[in-house]
Amino acid sequence: MKIVVDAMGGDHAPANVIAGVVDALKELPVSVTLVGMEDRVRAELSKFAYPKDRVDIVHAAEVVDMDDNPLDVIRKKKDSSIAVGINLLKNGGYDAFVSAGNTGALVAAATFYLRMIEGVDRPGIGLVIPQVDGAAFLIDVGANAEPKPEHLYQYGLMARAYMQIVMGRENPSVGLVNIGEEEGKGSGFDKQAYDLLKEKVPGFLGNVEPNKIFSNKADCIVCSGFVGNVIIKLSEGLMESAGTVLKREIKKNPLAMLGALLMMGSLKSLKKNVDYSEYGGAPLLGVNGIVMKCHGRSSPKAIKNAIRATVREVDHHILDKIKASLK
Amino acid sequence: MKIVVDAMGGDHAPANVIAGVVDALKELPVSVTLVGMEDRVRAELSKFAYPKDRVDIVHAAEVVDMDDNPLDVIRKKKDSSIAVGINLLKNGGYDAFVSAGNTGALVAAATFYLRMIEGVDRPGIGLVIPQVDGAAFLIDVGANAEPKPEHLYQYGLMARAYMQIVMGRENPSVGLVNIGEEEGKGSGFDKQAYDLLKEKVPGFLGNVEPNKIFSNKADCIVCSGFVGNVIIKLSEGLMESAGTVLKREIKKNPLAMLGALLMMGSLKSLKKNVDYSEYGGAPLLGVNGIVMKCHGRSSPKAIKNAIRATVREVDHHILDKIKASLK
Repeated sequence: MKIVVDAMGGDHAPANVIAGVVDALKELPVSVTLVGMEDRVRAELSKFAYPKDRVDIVHAAEVVDMDDNPLDVIRKKKDSSIAVGINLLKNGGYDAFVSAGNTGALVAAATFYLRMIEGVDRPGIGLVIPQVDGAAFLIDVGANAEPKPEHLYQYGLMARAYMQIVMGRENPSVGLVNIGEEEGKGSGFDKQAYDLLKEKVPGFLGNVEPNKIFSNKADCIVCSGFVGNVIIKLSEGLMESAGTVLKREIKKNPLAMLGALLMMGSLKSLKKNVDYSEYGGAPLLGVNGIVMKCHGRSSPKAIKNAIRATVREVDHHILDKIKASLK
Repeated sequence: MKIVVDAMGGDHAPANVIAGVVDALKELPVSVTLVGMEDRVRAELSKFAYPKDRVDIVHAAEVVDMDDNPLDVIRKKKDSSIAVGINLLKNGGYDAFVSAGNTGALVAAATFYLRMIEGVDRPGIGLVIPQVDGAAFLIDVGANAEPKPEHLYQYGLMARAYMQIVMGRENPSVGLVNIGEEEGKGSGFDKQAYDLLKEKVPGFLGNVEPNKIFSNKADCIVCSGFVGNVIIKLSEGLMESAGTVLKREIKKNPLAMLGALLMMGSLKSLKKNVDYSEYGGAPLLGVNGIVMKCHGRSSPKAIKNAIRATVREVDHHILDKIKASLK
């Protein structure tokens, strides 16, 4: 299996990306092609011992910055690591592309070069989110800020295929994020999306209220990219803020500090439970290729886990099976 | 000061409403007119000792259910506690209306009977949300699921007036919830809202990413009612789910249980810090009257705090001052 990795993507690239790749090579039966500025990639790689026959480098002279206009990746920065990497995948001989770079640019390049699969109009980024009991697949978390209602039922179909194929769920159920549980809630967009999901998606359960995102019964949860992005970023920010406040409270009281010490294992388990990087990466679904998006702040561990998730997708022939499920 | 309270609103009405009103009467210089089914209200009141000269009851034969169509309150259930209560306020002699009932129905009745103030096209529900350092005013959290961009700058102006008048903030700053920090992020709606806020709202700081909702510098944060509702419900659900997971983890380990006991004070402080009911109620701004919405699951304490917040609004002549600030 040969995976292309964007060496220049993310806030701590190329250091974290390459550290994660080196770890992945120890655990997973893959070859990795690193795309990026060759001298910087080589300098970083030289810090590690790694199986040299399973790593190669393809030079890309440019880097897409986090605040670049997404469309620049196909208009101006055609020699960026994202554009070069996506084109390697497109031209064959590789199984998947992994990037922690600019989300909009990754979506634009994947859509433009790989094109969409039949039956899907716009790509969506999915994410396996932890729940009180188990996990669910949330889509879209930021590829498509302003979807049409029909994009949401297509996300529902792809999400079902993903949960069935990669996560082994039988006949996965699907819910729609909405501000009320009853049919007819929300805006015109939400009502149209509801009707389409009801008509076209097997296992559709109805609306999921935002307070039930982490505790509802749906295997797959669909929403607009704007709302999905709010959900994952707000969750991240709230847990961080709660941690800050809790630490401050604990410092006021020596007994509480002792208590925190005794509870450290439980607090770490909680953190692990809500930490998306444990699941590794977020698949970009709907484009004609296996593309994995990692958080911009990915640690080496998050990169490694994203590569692991990508290997699983390739092993399960996710792309062919999603295509088949849409027919 | 005379406040009208919807005795029948909320999941635990009339019990919680009346318990909260009785507590409020002990602490606050108000008279309360309870609107609802007279026999049920009397039966509940008879459980308490309270100053009889400061409470009266206006009978309303109907109740708006949580799943009623909001427009039914003005079409069919004209004798409901919400419609009767809003009309008492409209016809004079009362200072404000407080309800924990169906949000959509409350918004519809307030808009239809009280009408909008000059310069505001649609009402918005604001909420004082706790932050790592201090608090901010988030608007709209659910009155207007599908706003136009111009509604958002009007929310910004009203929010500034609220934070200045009621919370004593000098020259409050305003941010827009968006999925990226840079200008130009989000959908067409978000870009138009950004431009209008920049043009028309003093102190506009730009976009606030969802992971910074609880830790950013803006005094006021504006968003669509759909997104605001996702923010508050998701926060509530996430803290509950995190609590469930933490309790489960703690039970696995006796030392962690001891630790939790030692940390109880700190955990309670955290809970208090993130508990909206501490702040009491959510003002419905933009209608020509002082209307306070309480959470459907309000405890007696939340009802009491909402009445306290309402008293503060009346004391500060919030309605006249918001009207003046829009001229």
